[in-house]
Amino acid sequence: MVGRVGLGMRGRFSLRDDMVYSMPVHFSGRAFEPVAAEYGDMTCVRLSFETDPEVLLNYLPGCFELVEPRVDVQYASCRDVKWMSGGDYRLLQVTVPARYVGEREVITGDYALVVWEDKACPIIGGREEDGVPKLFAQIASERHVGDHWFTSAAYESCQFCSLDFWGGERISDEDLAGMNREGRVNLFGWRYIPNLGGPGGALSQPTLYPQRVSFRSAQRGMGLVSWTKIGFERHPVQWRIIDALADMPVLGWRGALMTWGSAVLEVGSSRAL
Amino acid sequence: MVGRVGLGMRGRFSLRDDMVYSMPVHFSGRAFEPVAAEYGDMTCVRLSFETDPEVLLNYLPGCFELVEPRVDVQYASCRDVKWMSGGDYRLLQVTVPARYVGEREVITGDYALVVWEDKACPIIGGREEDGVPKLFAQIASERHVGDHWFTSAAYESCQFCSLDFWGGERISDEDLAGMNREGRVNLFGWRYIPNLGGPGGALSQPTLYPQRVSFRSAQRGMGLVSWTKIGFERHPVQWRIIDALADMPVLGWRGALMTWGSAVLEVGSSRAL
Amino acid sequence: MVGRVGLGMRGRFSLRDDMVYSMPVHFSGRAFEPVAAEYGDMTCVRLSFETDPEVLLNYLPGCFELVEPRVDVQYASCRDVKWMSGGDYRLLQVTVPARYVGEREVITGDYALVVWEDKACPIIGGREEDGVPKLFAQIASERHVGDHWFTSAAYESCQFCSLDFWGGERISDEDLAGMNREGRVNLFGWRYIPNLGGPGGALSQPTLYPQRVSFRSAQRGMGLVSWTKIGFERHPVQWRIIDALADMPVLGWRGALMTWGSAVLEVGSSRAL
Amino acid sequence: MVGRVGLGMRGRFSLRDDMVYSMPVHFSGRAFEPVAAEYGDMTCVRLSFETDPEVLLNYLPGCFELVEPRVDVQYASCRDVKWMSGGDYRLLQVTVPARYVGEREVITGDYALVVWEDKACPIIGGREEDGVPKLFAQIASERHVGDHWFTSAAYESCQFCSLDFWGGERISDEDLAGMNREGRVNLFGWRYIPNLGGPGGALSQPTLYPQRVSFRSAQRGMGLVSWTKIGFERHPVQWRIIDALADMPVLGWRGALMTWGSAVLEVGSSRAL
Repeated sequence: MVGRVGLGMRGRFSLRDDMVYSMPVHFSGRAFEPVAAEYGDMTCVRLSFETDPEVLLNYLPGCFELVEPRVDVQYASCRDVKWMSGGDYRLLQVTVPARYVGEREVITGDYALVVWEDKACPIIGGREEDGVPKLFAQIASERHVGDHWFTSAAYESCQFCSLDFWGGERISDEDLAGMNREGRVNLFGWRYIPNLGGPGGALSQPTLYPQRVSFRSAQRGMGLVSWTKIGFERHPVQWRIIDALADMPVLGWRGALMTWGSAVLEVGSSRAL
Repeated sequence: MVGRVGLGMRGRFSLRDDMVYSMPVHFSGRAFEPVAAEYGDMTCVRLSFETDPEVLLNYLPGCFELVEPRVDVQYASCRDVKWMSGGDYRLLQVTVPARYVGEREVITGDYALVVWEDKACPIIGGREEDGVPKLFAQIASERHVGDHWFTSAAYESCQFCSLDFWGGERISDEDLAGMNREGRVNLFGWRYIPNLGGPGGALSQPTLYPQRVSFRSAQRGMGLVSWTKIGFERHPVQWRIIDALADMPVLGWRGALMTWGSAVLEVGSSRAL
Repeated sequence: MVGRVGLGMRGRFSLRDDMVYSMPVHFSGRAFEPVAAEYGDMTCVRLSFETDPEVLLNYLPGCFELVEPRVDVQYASCRDVKWMSGGDYRLLQVTVPARYVGEREVITGDYALVVWEDKACPIIGGREEDGVPKLFAQIASERHVGDHWFTSAAYESCQFCSLDFWGGERISDEDLAGMNREGRVNLFGWRYIPNLGGPGGALSQPTLYPQRVSFRSAQRGMGLVSWTKIGFERHPVQWRIIDALADMPVLGWRGALMTWGSAVLEVGSSRAL
Repeated sequence: MVGRVGLGMRGRFSLRDDMVYSMPVHFSGRAFEPVAAEYGDMTCVRLSFETDPEVLLNYLPGCFELVEPRVDVQYASCRDVKWMSGGDYRLLQVTVPARYVGEREVITGDYALVVWEDKACPIIGGREEDGVPKLFAQIASERHVGDHWFTSAAYESCQFCSLDFWGGERISDEDLAGMNREGRVNLFGWRYIPNLGGPGGALSQPTLYPQRVSFRSAQRGMGLVSWTKIGFERHPVQWRIIDALADMPVLGWRGALMTWGSAVLEVGSSRAL
């Protein structure tokens, strides 16, 4: 065999600066295009609570300002996801209203504290290509008995989050039109890739991931989220995150909204801030 | 609410250069330690085939030499994984024997073409912290009828890989001791994180992820792997990878080995080359 | 401890003839009511092919007549299932048009050759309470690229069924109204529970499970189903079923229909024939 | 088409009294053989607590006597299951020590209150062929940090059971030999299939499912099980069962045992009592 391998056996794959890759790089490579990801069918429940800003500020990088001491927890059942051939996944997203204050620009949006998703593909893309701190969880489909909707999130059959929503007031067409006019979301993240073999970041930067949502129908209601600290042993990788969320004081629930609609995630417009 | 938010509402989280983080950064942060990941119980099947070096070289970056025109496909059932509290996952790894030829060092090892795993946690860590091109697949537990062992990999119930092994010859204690003396694995990857909003890599580098395996018992046998091209529609994110593997000519099967043992993955010694 | 247990320690649970139970019996028991199961949201694809009646008749019990040498394969994504608190599951159902010819009645309907479902709860109920031959499979959500819809079924990541549908012609409101007028389905099964410790059936009877479907919209198209024989080793419990389906000659595809609607399964009207 | 179907189109499948079938009957049928199911590799944790006999007796049919007011909760990771081609599944079994007192025989064993399993195949077989009240749950693999072992069970990501075991004292070879001499288990169930279209049972009988276990190693320790009532809405089919278990008073924990071994389930010796 040795005889067949010689000086000519250098690899021939090389990355081009004018193309985009993802791991494994040698099977990938395409021209950059400002793609947008169409989500044809989204069912969402968003619950908000007021908390102590002193707690929240500990988790917000210094280039962001806290707009309001509020936490938004959003469950979304994403269906008809075009880049997944119309496939589906579910997510549970925790954000705080924040304002990026940079040298050249000021942008108001939502800083992602954590986003759990139940499939690995969007997790990988969201982390590496958008800086969104996505992690895995088993997230149940939304179910309901009458107007009571609910879902849960778990890891290895250990439940750490429970979400309940009681619907009531259907949102008028007029108000819905207003919501659709304001349907832009500026999702902020912090993209970080560590150095290898030592401390520090090989890549560390705030990011903006613009999204646009539109609603077919919606209802207001009441709701609540509860977190269960499942501890280091049962969730060695994420227990600190769950503990931090469970420890945030709930000073009052500030609105609950259930929506049916669609979204366009402007992946190609993601950028470092 | 506005009144409560003012100039003092800047975020207070900042990353320290002497610490290590992972997304979400604001809930993480620890001193760097050269940790090693202990895998207490591994059942592996490794099949090798000879292929056309002209094909393989297309997938090998230029800083690597092909040591032999051989592809190694390894299934592993990883159990008693210490960093997962003794949890488990399964993987299907495709590598080629390669030699890193840098300016200051030459290292012989295995270049990872692709690694499928069935849990998101090790996928995230492997990609971001080691540059190993891990992707998600549903990977069945190894099963067997007598000496015939088999497993499969699928995406959304679409099978793309089938692996069969027929055992036979138990490896002697003496040979096993020899295998254990040579139990060091240099796994090579290419860590790549794209720029946002344009082409090119924000981070792009060859990596070394050293591992050490030891065997309690082993058997030689025969085996084969077959790939099914399931196409763009059924697997929009990975179809090219599967097609590339399916198109590699099999010029002969070159050994099949089933092993039971353990491993230590030297995460803390991972480094960019 | 012995002292505490005596003659008085006989169990006190007893089954009443005027109530209905399901295993575990001692935690169940309710008055019989002719319940109906509402399925609020069903997306279905139904493909039909003509086959050799000589083959089909081998699988049809003697109290049934074959109405047409046709096999109907139906995928259904069942959502908003009321008895599951609005939960969901997916199924793949294979039926033949049949006529029950009893001493006192003649009923035309569909004899279930096999029904795969991806959750155990409806499988248990369907087998024990309706005589429908339900089995487990991993069944992917329907996905689509444009008008091409598809799904797959697998066992332990071994795919055994692939279903494709190419839509085209939207069905007119008038035709849809006609379909809704004919929305009654008589699903036939054969309920069988074996003797223990010897051959023969402790219970063996044809059953009727009436259902009613209604459609919000529908489209005609073309489609096909393909079966992969995965063999005894990879599917020791179901390989014969898959082989039998794979061996049915396809003498021509006879229509393909995709529908969106709802259904009412009249569980309380299920009866032995 | 009508012309092709006539008097000759009666189904030709018939069930023979000297054979055994399972649904779908028309694809099955085999001579009766007293088969035994070999489980090559079982990891079990068994925890026992004393409870109020007045509570337990409510769940025990009158042909059984309560031997001791004790509940045994056993987790088992079943691997190398021969009838599943060496596949695996996990179960969580709740039994009480009971004595069957019939007219012709008295048998001491364990009456199954409920058995959760995470795969549908053994659930179907266990219910229909052995009268064991098996239900589905997501059951996590046993994990451990040092000597602390744990697992959980959930439904749709809603956790309803948590099990912890702290190991300690390794069982001596002598004691292990004694355990192996007493390795026979008489598992009692109640096989029940309802009438259709009305109350009452079409089949209702106590059953015996003999099993034989053997141990390679074992350790004593401490442990506990806790149940979470998740309510009608989150678990409409099983909430009563979970509530009943959660409401059983724990008057004291009575031993905890972790074992590694194998088992033979004597399916062919299952019988109605």
